[in-house]
Amino acid sequence: MRKTALKGVLKKLRSGKISLQKAFCLLKDLPYTDLGFAKLDNHRAIRRGFPEAVYCERKTPQQIEKILRHLIPRKEPLLLTRASEECFERLRGIYPELKFNKQAGVIYANEKPVRKKQGYVLIVTAGTSDIPVAEEARVTLETMGSRVKTLYDAGVAGIHRVLDKRGLLEGAAAIIVVAGMEGALASVISGLVSKPVIAVPTSVGYGASFKGLSALLTMLNCCSPGVSVVNIDNGFGAGYFAGLISKS
Amino acid sequence: MRKTALKGVLKKLRSGKISLQKAFCLLKDLPYTDLGFAKLDNHRAIRRGFPEAVYCERKTPQQIEKILRHLIPRKEPLLLTRASEECFERLRGIYPELKFNKQAGVIYANEKPVRKKQGYVLIVTAGTSDIPVAEEARVTLETMGSRVKTLYDAGVAGIHRVLDKRGLLEGAAAIIVVAGMEGALASVISGLVSKPVIAVPTSVGYGASFKGLSALLTMLNCCSPGVSVVNIDNGFGAGYFAGLISKS
Amino acid sequence: MRKTALKGVLKKLRSGKISLQKAFCLLKDLPYTDLGFAKLDNHRAIRRGFPEAVYCERKTPQQIEKILRHLIPRKEPLLLTRASEECFERLRGIYPELKFNKQAGVIYANEKPVRKKQGYVLIVTAGTSDIPVAEEARVTLETMGSRVKTLYDAGVAGIHRVLDKRGLLEGAAAIIVVAGMEGALASVISGLVSKPVIAVPTSVGYGASFKGLSALLTMLNCCSPGVSVVNIDNGFGAGYFAGLISKS
Amino acid sequence: MRKTALKGVLKKLRSGKISLQKAFCLLKDLPYTDLGFAKLDNHRAIRRGFPEAVYCERKTPQQIEKILRHLIPRKEPLLLTRASEECFERLRGIYPELKFNKQAGVIYANEKPVRKKQGYVLIVTAGTSDIPVAEEARVTLETMGSRVKTLYDAGVAGIHRVLDKRGLLEGAAAIIVVAGMEGALASVISGLVSKPVIAVPTSVGYGASFKGLSALLTMLNCCSPGVSVVNIDNGFGAGYFAGLISKS
Amino acid sequence: MRKTALKGVLKKLRSGKISLQKAFCLLKDLPYTDLGFAKLDNHRAIRRGFPEAVYCERKTPQQIEKILRHLIPRKEPLLLTRASEECFERLRGIYPELKFNKQAGVIYANEKPVRKKQGYVLIVTAGTSDIPVAEEARVTLETMGSRVKTLYDAGVAGIHRVLDKRGLLEGAAAIIVVAGMEGALASVISGLVSKPVIAVPTSVGYGASFKGLSALLTMLNCCSPGVSVVNIDNGFGAGYFAGLISKS
Amino acid sequence: MRKTALKGVLKKLRSGKISLQKAFCLLKDLPYTDLGFAKLDNHRAIRRGFPEAVYCERKTPQQIEKILRHLIPRKEPLLLTRASEECFERLRGIYPELKFNKQAGVIYANEKPVRKKQGYVLIVTAGTSDIPVAEEARVTLETMGSRVKTLYDAGVAGIHRVLDKRGLLEGAAAIIVVAGMEGALASVISGLVSKPVIAVPTSVGYGASFKGLSALLTMLNCCSPGVSVVNIDNGFGAGYFAGLISKS
Amino acid sequence: MRKTALKGVLKKLRSGKISLQKAFCLLKDLPYTDLGFAKLDNHRAIRRGFPEAVYCERKTPQQIEKILRHLIPRKEPLLLTRASEECFERLRGIYPELKFNKQAGVIYANEKPVRKKQGYVLIVTAGTSDIPVAEEARVTLETMGSRVKTLYDAGVAGIHRVLDKRGLLEGAAAIIVVAGMEGALASVISGLVSKPVIAVPTSVGYGASFKGLSALLTMLNCCSPGVSVVNIDNGFGAGYFAGLISKS
Amino acid sequence: MRKTALKGVLKKLRSGKISLQKAFCLLKDLPYTDLGFAKLDNHRAIRRGFPEAVYCERKTPQQIEKILRHLIPRKEPLLLTRASEECFERLRGIYPELKFNKQAGVIYANEKPVRKKQGYVLIVTAGTSDIPVAEEARVTLETMGSRVKTLYDAGVAGIHRVLDKRGLLEGAAAIIVVAGMEGALASVISGLVSKPVIAVPTSVGYGASFKGLSALLTMLNCCSPGVSVVNIDNGFGAGYFAGLISKS
Repeated sequence: MRKTALKGVLKKLRSGKISLQKAFCLLKDLPYTDLGFAKLDNHRAIRRGFPEAVYCERKTPQQIEKILRHLIPRKEPLLLTRASEECFERLRGIYPELKFNKQAGVIYANEKPVRKKQGYVLIVTAGTSDIPVAEEARVTLETMGSRVKTLYDAGVAGIHRVLDKRGLLEGAAAIIVVAGMEGALASVISGLVSKPVIAVPTSVGYGASFKGLSALLTMLNCCSPGVSVVNIDNGFGAGYFAGLISKS
Repeated sequence: MRKTALKGVLKKLRSGKISLQKAFCLLKDLPYTDLGFAKLDNHRAIRRGFPEAVYCERKTPQQIEKILRHLIPRKEPLLLTRASEECFERLRGIYPELKFNKQAGVIYANEKPVRKKQGYVLIVTAGTSDIPVAEEARVTLETMGSRVKTLYDAGVAGIHRVLDKRGLLEGAAAIIVVAGMEGALASVISGLVSKPVIAVPTSVGYGASFKGLSALLTMLNCCSPGVSVVNIDNGFGAGYFAGLISKS
Repeated sequence: MRKTALKGVLKKLRSGKISLQKAFCLLKDLPYTDLGFAKLDNHRAIRRGFPEAVYCERKTPQQIEKILRHLIPRKEPLLLTRASEECFERLRGIYPELKFNKQAGVIYANEKPVRKKQGYVLIVTAGTSDIPVAEEARVTLETMGSRVKTLYDAGVAGIHRVLDKRGLLEGAAAIIVVAGMEGALASVISGLVSKPVIAVPTSVGYGASFKGLSALLTMLNCCSPGVSVVNIDNGFGAGYFAGLISKS
Repeated sequence: MRKTALKGVLKKLRSGKISLQKAFCLLKDLPYTDLGFAKLDNHRAIRRGFPEAVYCERKTPQQIEKILRHLIPRKEPLLLTRASEECFERLRGIYPELKFNKQAGVIYANEKPVRKKQGYVLIVTAGTSDIPVAEEARVTLETMGSRVKTLYDAGVAGIHRVLDKRGLLEGAAAIIVVAGMEGALASVISGLVSKPVIAVPTSVGYGASFKGLSALLTMLNCCSPGVSVVNIDNGFGAGYFAGLISKS
Repeated sequence: MRKTALKGVLKKLRSGKISLQKAFCLLKDLPYTDLGFAKLDNHRAIRRGFPEAVYCERKTPQQIEKILRHLIPRKEPLLLTRASEECFERLRGIYPELKFNKQAGVIYANEKPVRKKQGYVLIVTAGTSDIPVAEEARVTLETMGSRVKTLYDAGVAGIHRVLDKRGLLEGAAAIIVVAGMEGALASVISGLVSKPVIAVPTSVGYGASFKGLSALLTMLNCCSPGVSVVNIDNGFGAGYFAGLISKS
Repeated sequence: MRKTALKGVLKKLRSGKISLQKAFCLLKDLPYTDLGFAKLDNHRAIRRGFPEAVYCERKTPQQIEKILRHLIPRKEPLLLTRASEECFERLRGIYPELKFNKQAGVIYANEKPVRKKQGYVLIVTAGTSDIPVAEEARVTLETMGSRVKTLYDAGVAGIHRVLDKRGLLEGAAAIIVVAGMEGALASVISGLVSKPVIAVPTSVGYGASFKGLSALLTMLNCCSPGVSVVNIDNGFGAGYFAGLISKS
Repeated sequence: MRKTALKGVLKKLRSGKISLQKAFCLLKDLPYTDLGFAKLDNHRAIRRGFPEAVYCERKTPQQIEKILRHLIPRKEPLLLTRASEECFERLRGIYPELKFNKQAGVIYANEKPVRKKQGYVLIVTAGTSDIPVAEEARVTLETMGSRVKTLYDAGVAGIHRVLDKRGLLEGAAAIIVVAGMEGALASVISGLVSKPVIAVPTSVGYGASFKGLSALLTMLNCCSPGVSVVNIDNGFGAGYFAGLISKS
Repeated sequence: MRKTALKGVLKKLRSGKISLQKAFCLLKDLPYTDLGFAKLDNHRAIRRGFPEAVYCERKTPQQIEKILRHLIPRKEPLLLTRASEECFERLRGIYPELKFNKQAGVIYANEKPVRKKQGYVLIVTAGTSDIPVAEEARVTLETMGSRVKTLYDAGVAGIHRVLDKRGLLEGAAAIIVVAGMEGALASVISGLVSKPVIAVPTSVGYGASFKGLSALLTMLNCCSPGVSVVNIDNGFGAGYFAGLISKS
């Protein structure tokens, strides 16, 4: 339930258009609905500007389904991350509007309309293997109503690929840089432009990449200021953060 | 040399107001001045919106002094981080306008005027011992012309101290959360409001805090989205990043 | 064999009600029964107040079965942790009283009756994915005869879910907090009440959670005193420890 | 301000014995006093049963002094951990009642009287070098009004030293085990008795002890249940936790 | 080819009993046989007192078979570690004398006869799950001709199980202690007797055992001298080392 | 497109032999071809002396196939690392010239002819299990036109196997040493000769080898100078680096 | 009190040569003397064959002095490790027989006479900087009555220095190898001879040696069997272990 | 003693120009001189092409002086790394030809003449603080007779500083890249040119740089091939390796 909806209920109550009983029913499970195994945070859209996303890993299909059934009536943007195709097939039966981004493993629906006159968020990846994480960021942003542009496979092994795109970089409201292995791309891009860079280390690599640790440390140690970092493979978090920035 | 200054030179040249020779002199050490041990990035204010900050650790006093002498004539904001009081005393002889934030170890001057109508950046610390890092962020922001408010010593051991300040949190354009030990404050604040949170882990703590590693991991694993992280004790980086956001 | 049983045998021997030979047979494998691959610690119930739990991981089905056959005649609480459903099916054939908590992977039987007039232990989880570990704690406590209440999915991303339950928190004799990712919930709850908090980090998370390391460090670095920590995913250990406290 | 004191104020207000203005003055800085650099949590004694301890590391003498001046009038137990002798000398001038435990680096005063009829907490150390951490626990417990017994230098290299003291172990309400190097003592003691063991790893050792990491991991992996762990060298935390248990 | 065999060839050559050509054939691939993918170290039995053991992990069945075919004619003790049952079935077709210790995953044959009048090596495990590693040590020792006794599942959670066996401990020439989780058993045993203890950490455990790291660090930090350590799960190495000691 | 080819196009254009339109078509996707999910770096052969190698891990078969179709017309050396046999079967249908080194998991074609009069690169492995990584280096070198010799299974457990081959070591232009477990072979070889040694740690080992970390640290800490190191299991990188050296 | 002394007391008691009271006085503080801060393990010489060594780090001079005063009357070998020269000067005043090995930081006295007909322990160091740790081993061995030979600065950077000394290596009863940096020397020596090798990693090195971690891992991963490892810089432990071996 | 010198002695002996006795004296301490605490590797110049460098850390001034006195008569290049100014002052008294590079902490003399017609090695640093490590490499190379050029403070925060110098990069025989913090410069440079890049991570940085670990991992994970890595702060190793390459 979003801010405007809540105010609507309260106004109607004040003006006598709805009974106290009715208002109570509409509001009763604020601030959360208790499903026993999960407490759905109905309050979040008011507090946070975007409703709860469902992280599907380690949840059973039954749990995800129950959560979804509670979320559908809200008519709000839906985002289920780390979801399998099997999960999607099952849930589509319940709610046919659901879409699936297979690369990212994200199920979504009810995207907010793109806000006009705002800038775009640019998502850059160092390599092809980083694209799934980038796509998770992209879907998140689009569900939040942000404009997105992408520049994939532009890593520092061939730095002319990114130098070539200065205009695209400069035009962005914020830049998400997704990179595994040594993760040097965030430093390079941050050194080129005056835009906030949100760096996403990925687990792409082997050996001393230690499943993303190498890229994570690289990004945290950026000698060029203007970079902040999210968890390894956390495309959702980067997208959400960029969405907050580009909205403000 | 900033963007407008550069355009001014070029316009004057085109209109014949200055000679080619004169323009050459004004522009000649673009994009950088080579001091041998350092290449000052004159171009940065154009590319990045804020000139180079000088990181003083491991630089000799002679090196810092030489760099400063080259920066002074630019009449631009000056920021020297991780500087000692001795260093400040020495440099003040050269450039009396310099100020020193002792807690933060930052020397600065020529702050940009605060931009009107913009929001403020809120800096929160979990404890008293985190204040030096927070102050580094504050000076950085103020030098960039951003408005800053602070809320110090509001950690989760007494969470009413932060719940009490919801209005202050909600009103901010961005929030910097500075915390050592378990670093849980970033998660809690991010769960309360819809503002981008920049988390700064600090090395405050002992034993299994492993000099800030514990707080760093906590912040990277935030279950609440809307948080991004900078290096341990990197108040400058958090301030710079927040400055980029609040400017946009 | 429990304290009272042992004393009974000895009294009977003294009073001549049983022969030395008989007493010997009853006591002969004290303090442990040697199965070759395992030495069952018969003495433990006397020393520790609760008989040996069987940790099933890496034991063969044959080994578990043999151990169970030796434990059954004791008529004491049985607890087999990290057990598979296959294992349960096999063992049920031997001892039909066995029950299985599937989420927790715990086989159990012969629970001690709940002690009256004692307080309850409250088990809180940060998320839905932490429930299996919480259930391991719950079964352990119930087998030991402790009262348990639960509060699942109450993490710091929506902290009102836990603030809302102050009464439940304050009423507990001890609180077990089960959390993965950044594990901040233990700090927050410990800051709210004056009850001992036993924190269980879980391996829920990805990337820089490093399979529970992040939550473990967070909990060890709690700035709020009154928290102690057990191993990652160790619901059994937390339950056992809370059982010792609530019993005393 | 403790629970009973608060109720007293409120009762007097209700009965008209004090004016609203007077009540306001008494209560006004609840729930915390804001010193700018610190927010003293006046509420804690109500919430937690014991007032705020002051962690002195990285605080300036001025800051500690200011905090102390605000705490003195409360007439409540005082505990300042990780304090230097210089700090003690300075503070004693302000408040002559202060005492100093040099080994532990703890300044304290206004201990609560020992509660009668309660059990004692036993503090065991593995070696002589672990005593400072044990003493921090002891002072904490005594300030909270708990009875304490100690058994120092009883490590597993000569296990008869601890086997010899079974009675002392069995009689305790809770046992704090302080050990560095391999930290095996917690496992051994926990295997002997049915009491909750709070394990404190210390940074005593060299090489692969990695400043306490070795002992910490040992204690977290205790094969014997009934053990929980606090941070490396955290005698205060262990004492506080044991105080909560022995009180309940 | 062992020392005595080599001397035999040389004596025969000197006395004219065999031709130079014949001697050359017998000796020609000393000091190693080059199979391309492997260089069999024929010299080792002379240098080291025991021929090369074959570590099967990551070798293809073809490679293992080829190596075996070269080793068989030497009529010397054979030891193939980390071998699968499939591998054993295949190799048995080539050399029916081969035996297989399934728990340990060791294929072996041609054990040296047990040396008389020597002491025995005692192998102790902390738990049932540590037995496979202990068995690897046992087979290694027996193949080298050492006497072995075992004491399995005698961990510190019930320390009377080991205190009970002082005689067995004191009588050994060397003691191998195999333990996972916190690995405290090595310290305890080393504190009880004056025999060299070879500690083998195992990967048994979960969470903060970090696949044996916890037990490894514990054993390296033994406060009781007389302990040395081999790699995690390295039963072979411990057996070999104990074999060298008991032989001397 | 290689340097000479590029110059050819430009010369033809200057001399009028081809039209501007024709030249444009030939050059148009310089410096890279954008496939959306990948930006093929056509420029690399000019900049780097060897075209882009394709790292197949985490790329879909469709992506690899598309990249290959763009690379084939260039008639340049092809190298696809970390490729499966299935992948090879699929691609062979498109381009029958492709060959597959199964041990190394490398698909390749169009090797450059071996340069005459140059020295050879020697590849040494410590064990049989290190051969796949060594083979990746060998194929890389041969595709670049370098001569290669190999010396497999010559680890320090039988150091005479390498001392025996001094001539082979001394004759090399560069030596690649591939070793897992303790990785000591690089130090030993580097101490014997005056040739640059490129050390490749492998993930061969178990327990405290930590998937190659042990060998990596060993090689980085070589007390003998003349050694540099590449990532764990990075046979390709070592081969490429040696190719650059032997070419110069 | 040693075994023979204890038996003497008991025999005298049995034969009536001393009174019960007298025997009690002689034996009364067995098995340990409680100094409050330390429990001296009088029993150890009986159990372990060598009395307690005193680890001086983190002990105050007063504590060390008190312990020494209790040990002197026993007339047994004395060993105080990690001791400073100041400490030695102080203690020499009490007991002039004390000697000091400055390099090793070991104070000692009352060495046992060298056992005849036994073999020697050889101590090898990789470099000059490893000598202090080697000396700690040497003093320990000599105090225990073992014969010692040394071979210092014989690391793998010039492996002929060790190959040259095969006779010395082969003649030893046990070999202690002390090495920092990459620690490869233990592998090489173990591959050459059939003697048990006790490896001591040292903290000599910088950067990725991580204070001895690199050498420690190398030694634990020895591909050549016959090596066991003690803690970083633990010369005492290596000496003690070798003493146990050479004695048997 | 170098190769040519050795051959000279042998020729003279063969032709009778010197007596056997004389030749023996000249050669007698080949292959090493035993100083007790050090074995000087006289053979190294023959084997390795460059005599032993002396690593001064943890050596006493007396030890360094003794080693130097043995090295001086050889009239060969001298290199003493990690040396203090005090050490230099002391040694200069013995051998006035010694020079000192203060930034690098290197004492040196008898540089080999620069080889003509060879290429140069280019040393690049990311920042000013990395210069001491770079200087260690430079002195090493110059002592070996290699030509060196430098490009200091050209990090990725202002990447135009390095793009600007393509010619300098392309002209080098090999490039040493010295960088701390995130260490991204090696990747970027390697992507630009076809020269072997030797990457030296430095301990410059703070927080999550973990004393050079971050830069080390970055460099090991270079997505651009053609990079190999030496130990953190190991300028000497990088210089030596580059010297071997540029010589070949």
